[in-house]
Amino acid sequence: MFIHNVFFWLKEKDNEEAKQALLAGLKTLEGIESIQTVYIGTAAATRRPVIDATYDFAEILIFEDEAAHDIYQVHELHKKFVETCSHLWEKVLIYDVEA
Amino acid sequence: MFIHNVFFWLKEKDNEEAKQALLAGLKTLEGIESIQTVYIGTAAATRRPVIDATYDFAEILIFEDEAAHDIYQVHELHKKFVETCSHLWEKVLIYDVEA
Repeated sequence: MFIHNVFFWLKEKDNEEAKQALLAGLKTLEGIESIQTVYIGTAAATRRPVIDATYDFAEILIFEDEAAHDIYQVHELHKKFVETCSHLWEKVLIYDVEA
Repeated sequence: MFIHNVFFWLKEKDNEEAKQALLAGLKTLEGIESIQTVYIGTAAATRRPVIDATYDFAEILIFEDEAAHDIYQVHELHKKFVETCSHLWEKVLIYDVEA
């Protein structure tokens, strides 16, 4: 399996409109057929020194393999998401896991 | 859903014995019943500036909810894993996601 973990930090953390726009953008990615499972969420309530809970949104995508992930990267819905939403975040951090 | 993403950086990155010991320890966690799905893996081959591929192991655990995650945290198998393996890593970083 190939797990694509993406964490987003908004430019304007307290801007409710920006939050809703990013969330709406993330949800459009659910339409990409090569994804097996989509989890979209925010930082859980857990707090310990080893936990990073500073991000605003997380997108965890489970793919059958790297090839399925590659289809996602060049998919029109993904390109449109980046075009529409990339101005909203100040930082994005990805952990791709081969499991 | 509650997704518990844990990334491990080994003290000795090139120590094959340490790698195998951590992997074996991670696999014992699969015995914890409150986990819905377990993914254990390493950094995928993808490389871009926004990708952190410096970690040695990733453990991605999917739980029904935070309560199921809390059971895992205090489970004997988890305690034994930390006791047995924590000397192997120099850094651990967690992203808990409520999705």
